Amino acid sequence: MKTFFDDRQRAHDPKHFLSSGAPQPNPEQPARVDALRSAVERLGLPIAAPDDHGIGPIAAVHTPEYLAFLQTIYARWQRIEGGSAEVIPNIHPDRRDASYPKSAVGQAGWHQADTACPISAETWDSAYWSAQSAVSASQLVISGQRCAYALCRPPGHHAFADLAGGFCFLNNTAIAAQVCVTAGLRPAILDVDLHHGNGTQGIFYGRSDVLTVSVHADPVRYYPFFWGHAHERGEGAGLGYNLNLPIARGTADDGFLAALEEGIARIRAFGPDVLIVALGLDPFEGDPFGGLAVTTSGFARIGERLAKVRLPAVIVQEGGYLCPELGDNLASFLSGLEATHG
Amino acid sequence: MKTFFDDRQRAHDPKHFLSSGAPQPNPEQPARVDALRSAVERLGLPIAAPDDHGIGPIAAVHTPEYLAFLQTIYARWQRIEGGSAEVIPNIHPDRRDASYPKSAVGQAGWHQADTACPISAETWDSAYWSAQSAVSASQLVISGQRCAYALCRPPGHHAFADLAGGFCFLNNTAIAAQVCVTAGLRPAILDVDLHHGNGTQGIFYGRSDVLTVSVHADPVRYYPFFWGHAHERGEGAGLGYNLNLPIARGTADDGFLAALEEGIARIRAFGPDVLIVALGLDPFEGDPFGGLAVTTSGFARIGERLAKVRLPAVIVQEGGYLCPELGDNLASFLSGLEATHG
Repeated sequence: MKTFFDDRQRAHDPKHFLSSGAPQPNPEQPARVDALRSAVERLGLPIAAPDDHGIGPIAAVHTPEYLAFLQTIYARWQRIEGGSAEVIPNIHPDRRDASYPKSAVGQAGWHQADTACPISAETWDSAYWSAQSAVSASQLVISGQRCAYALCRPPGHHAFADLAGGFCFLNNTAIAAQVCVTAGLRPAILDVDLHHGNGTQGIFYGRSDVLTVSVHADPVRYYPFFWGHAHERGEGAGLGYNLNLPIARGTADDGFLAALEEGIARIRAFGPDVLIVALGLDPFEGDPFGGLAVTTSGFARIGERLAKVRLPAVIVQEGGYLCPELGDNLASFLSGLEATHG
Repeated sequence: MKTFFDDRQRAHDPKHFLSSGAPQPNPEQPARVDALRSAVERLGLPIAAPDDHGIGPIAAVHTPEYLAFLQTIYARWQRIEGGSAEVIPNIHPDRRDASYPKSAVGQAGWHQADTACPISAETWDSAYWSAQSAVSASQLVISGQRCAYALCRPPGHHAFADLAGGFCFLNNTAIAAQVCVTAGLRPAILDVDLHHGNGTQGIFYGRSDVLTVSVHADPVRYYPFFWGHAHERGEGAGLGYNLNLPIARGTADDGFLAALEEGIARIRAFGPDVLIVALGLDPFEGDPFGGLAVTTSGFARIGERLAKVRLPAVIVQEGGYLCPELGDNLASFLSGLEATHG
C-alpha cells in the first residue's frame, strides 16, 4: 500500500482556538505528521509525494467564492488595524442565502464556522497539498491498486463546500470521492473519526451517487453539535443516502465495531465499487479529546473488518491528536487492513 | 413625553468582544444609561419605571427555545470545566434547519451570532426590563399619548427571533411594534442606528403588516455584513415591506437626511398609524464606532423631520456609545422631535 504526503502539508501551524469560549492551544499540530509518518515507515510501506493535479479536483467540491477566500484572506487580514494575527471569525450569518459581504471580517464569518480553523500565511499551501495527496491516492486506486493511504494534514471532513471548521479547510475525503465519481466509479464514504463528518455529509447531502456513512460520538452534547444526528438522512435526491451512527461517549471496541457493522450493511446495500475511509484515530481511549474508548488493538479490528468488505479502498487521514500511541494506532489500523486485504 | 427605564437594566455589564478576531473592551457599558438619563432629566421630561407586562409580549417575537436559552445558559455554562467566564459562542450552524443540540456550547453557537453579546448572570434580567420599558412606551402611545421614549439598554435591533448579536438579546423595537399590532395598529419601523437593524428585519421579513425601514452605514464592508443591503426587500408575503437605505461611510447630516426622506416616503405609502423609531445615536461623528458623521445639531434635524410625519411615535433606544456628546445627542433629537411634535 502506497502512502502519499507532501512536506508542504507541515507548514500550517495554528496557534489557538476557543473551546467553550476560552482560548486553548490548537491540537492540530504539524508534529502529528511525524507520528503518522513514522508509523508508515515502521511498516515498511512506501511514501511518495503527490502529483500536482491542479485546482480542478478541489473546485469540483468547493465553491469559487470559498477558494478565493482561502487563497486571499490572510493577506487582506493583515491590512486590518488591530486585527488578530491569524484569521479568526467573530460574526456569522444565520443562513447561506443572506447577502455576501466584501469585508474580510464578514467573509471570515461566512466561511469559518468556528474558531478552530485559524488561517495563517501557510494555510492555503498546506491545505492544497493535503488535498493533492487525497487526489493522488484516489488516482492510484482508480488505476487498479487495491488500496492507497493519503496522509492528509490538515484534515478535511469538517469542511463544507464553502465553510471551514474544526481544523479543516479542504474536504480531502469528499475530494477523493468526487475524483472517483468523475472516473465513473460509485464511491461509498465511511467516516470512523471521533467527530461526525459534517462537511462531507453537507457536500453530498442532496446526492444519491455518493453514500455517506459516519460512526461518531453522539453530537447531541459533542462537536459538531448541529450535525451528525441519526435523523439526518439526506435531502431531495439524496434522501436515504446519508447514514449517521452516533454512539455514546466512552464507547469502546465492541460497541464501535457493532456500529461499524451497521454502516457496512448499508454500504453493501448501496453497491459501491470503491470505499473511501475517512480515518480518524481520535476514537482512541488515550486521545486528548477523550470522547470514545477504542484501543490500539481495536484499530486493527476496524482495519480487518474493512478489508473484509473486499472493495478497493482509499484511506484518507482525518483526526487523531498527539499522544504516545498516535503512530501505533495508525500502524495497527493499516496492519489489520493489509493482513486481510493484501 | 414620558421616558421608561428600570434600574435593573444597568446590571448587565459585558467585559469583552472580539473585533476582527482580537479581544477588545465591550463598548455596551452600563454608563451609557447615565448619559442618556441625564439628558432626559435636563429636558425636564418625566422618567418612570415600566410595569411588568410579563413574558407574553416578548414571546410574541422570540422563540421558546431562545427564551429558555437566555434564561438558563449562564448557570449551565458554569458547569463547563475550563469554560469562559461569560457565555461566548465558538461554533455556529450554517443554517437554522440543522439539528438543535442539547449542549450548552452548541446552543451558544446556535443562539449567539457573534462574540459581541456575552451572557453573564445579570443579562437576562437587564434584557427583560429593557423589553418591559419598550412595552410600556408602546402601551402609553396605544392609550393615546402622542409620543413615548423607551430608554432601552441593552439595545435590541440586532436580535433575531432566536439569535442574539451585536450587544442585543431581546429585540425591543420589534417587541414594541408587535405590541402595537396586537392592539390593532399598523406600525412602521424606522431604524436610524449606525448599524443595520438586521434582527428587526429578520423578525418581520415575511410579513406585510409591519413595515421595516433602516438607514445605516453600507454593510458591504461594515457590521452586520450579511444583512442590510438594498436588494433585501422581504420575502413571501413580506416582499416589498422591507427597505434598506445603506449610505456611504462618513456620510454627514445632509446625506443622512436625504436617505431619511426616502424612508419617510416609503412609510407614507405604507399608511401606518404608529411609528416605531429605533434610535441609534452612533451615526454621530464623534461616536467610538466612527462610521458616519452626523452632528449633534443633525440629530435635532432628524427629530424635527420625524415629528413632521405626524404619527404617534414610540422612540426605542438602540446604539450610541460613550463619548462626551452622547447625552447631548439624545437631548438634541428629543428637542427636535418635541419642538415640532409637541
